[in-house]
Amino acid sequence: MHPLTNNPMEKRPLILIANDDGYQAKGINCLVDMLHDMGDIVVCAPEGPRSGFACAFSATTPLTLTCRERRPGVEIWSSNGTPVDCVKLALSEILHGRKPDIVIGGINHGDNASVNTHYSGTMGVTLEGCMKYIPSVAFSLCTHAADADFEPMRPYIRRFTHVVLEKGLPKGVCLNINFPVVVSPGEKREERGLTAVEGDYHGVKVCRMAAGTWGNEITRCHHPRGYDYYWMVGSYQNDEPEAEGTDNWALTHGYIAITPTRIDVTAYDAMEQLNTQLGIDNDKDLSPL
Amino acid sequence: MHPLTNNPMEKRPLILIANDDGYQAKGINCLVDMLHDMGDIVVCAPEGPRSGFACAFSATTPLTLTCRERRPGVEIWSSNGTPVDCVKLALSEILHGRKPDIVIGGINHGDNASVNTHYSGTMGVTLEGCMKYIPSVAFSLCTHAADADFEPMRPYIRRFTHVVLEKGLPKGVCLNINFPVVVSPGEKREERGLTAVEGDYHGVKVCRMAAGTWGNEITRCHHPRGYDYYWMVGSYQNDEPEAEGTDNWALTHGYIAITPTRIDVTAYDAMEQLNTQLGIDNDKDLSPL
Repeated sequence: MHPLTNNPMEKRPLILIANDDGYQAKGINCLVDMLHDMGDIVVCAPEGPRSGFACAFSATTPLTLTCRERRPGVEIWSSNGTPVDCVKLALSEILHGRKPDIVIGGINHGDNASVNTHYSGTMGVTLEGCMKYIPSVAFSLCTHAADADFEPMRPYIRRFTHVVLEKGLPKGVCLNINFPVVVSPGEKREERGLTAVEGDYHGVKVCRMAAGTWGNEITRCHHPRGYDYYWMVGSYQNDEPEAEGTDNWALTHGYIAITPTRIDVTAYDAMEQLNTQLGIDNDKDLSPL
Repeated sequence: MHPLTNNPMEKRPLILIANDDGYQAKGINCLVDMLHDMGDIVVCAPEGPRSGFACAFSATTPLTLTCRERRPGVEIWSSNGTPVDCVKLALSEILHGRKPDIVIGGINHGDNASVNTHYSGTMGVTLEGCMKYIPSVAFSLCTHAADADFEPMRPYIRRFTHVVLEKGLPKGVCLNINFPVVVSPGEKREERGLTAVEGDYHGVKVCRMAAGTWGNEITRCHHPRGYDYYWMVGSYQNDEPEAEGTDNWALTHGYIAITPTRIDVTAYDAMEQLNTQLGIDNDKDLSPL
């Protein structure tokens, strides 16, 4: 049995889970199954897919909140809002100020490495938790398959969750954890340039974000009524495929990639150069043009 | 006349502008007016307000693109999509691969300092440009008033745009530039804790992101049909009001705040601690739980 539940006198941790694939997605339900003995779980997730919603919140839409399921230790809620809306709604309207011990986004169907972190609704969940000073983690699997096999992730997700519950995370830092797909030895599979790993993960690496670029993002279509419309698609290019310390490298080489991610996006190393380029002496006015 | 247009043999810079308040907002139209002699301007902006849309893109919605106006040196387009969709659509379907010399988000009605940078659609525009390796800047004014006075910003916006066009920006770094509201001497005004500056800006400061928190974000309302719904609102708290180097400090003290912002959100300083906490030796497996 997990040490956290060994002692009945010990208060069970409160685990808040959200995602961007919707409360019915396989990934989030597998996550609940993996963690339900480790604490009280509250799920608040969108009613349907909200991939690519980043940190968006609903400034102009009235939001709903519906309880979908209550069983011992687990509550599942849904909202018409964004992933970030779900976290904010849960903190205010479901937990009524009881602070979660951890906020988890996922398990996402699809990788959130490299620049995907900026578009990801799963990372939106995690950044939102982190901005509320709650230890926060995102789990993602490198396949978009609706029926993906999340089982190989189970012991690692339990380990990472346990460590974060025990030791917390540095203030303003959350974790973006991506898993390669595991396939049987001899089986080959590739999705968007990410090769599956045969047999088992090669290990775990703490990584930095790879530099990458999305291209060919728009597909133009012609509507039968005579106008053009567009689908957002795209192909990802790793701009530094040889760089060993990156999340993309780890994932393409069979490792679980943990990218510590910070809220403070200031480019500290660019500040001095900017002062010079913009002709700013911080104690004087800049002459306007 | 601006030096960039003095020489008719010199190719005019291409300036791509988007926002999150919609193509009809006063801020974006003032921006076009401020910059139209400095280059060829293409605006592609949402059809209506998209505040709080962050880096969201539309993964499941068919997108539209409508030309609203064409005059010498200026084209204005709108889309049903998000601010980021607008940038992607413009690059692919309006500019057909001609790369802008600068991408500008704004002028936003409302400040995008501190953690607002994570929610801001204006910053979504700017991060999107930066992720495409184009020098990118966001301009925001610290008031949500639809009829705000953007004129005091003009010489500074021209100066900053000129400098970025001339000198570029470090790779992977964009600028989040916020302006306090200027009021007549003797006039007092405050909006969400940000006091307006009397007479003129006190100067320009290159800043870091302040640590701040949004609270009281949900207002519950009761629908006449008998169910509850929720509005996303909130109040911002500066968690380090005395910290002089921050964007919030600069803005509350009458300075224009330039926060250099980076795409790479890796928390480098947390990597070693994480390796220890998670029990990872980067060359070995982590034992699962």
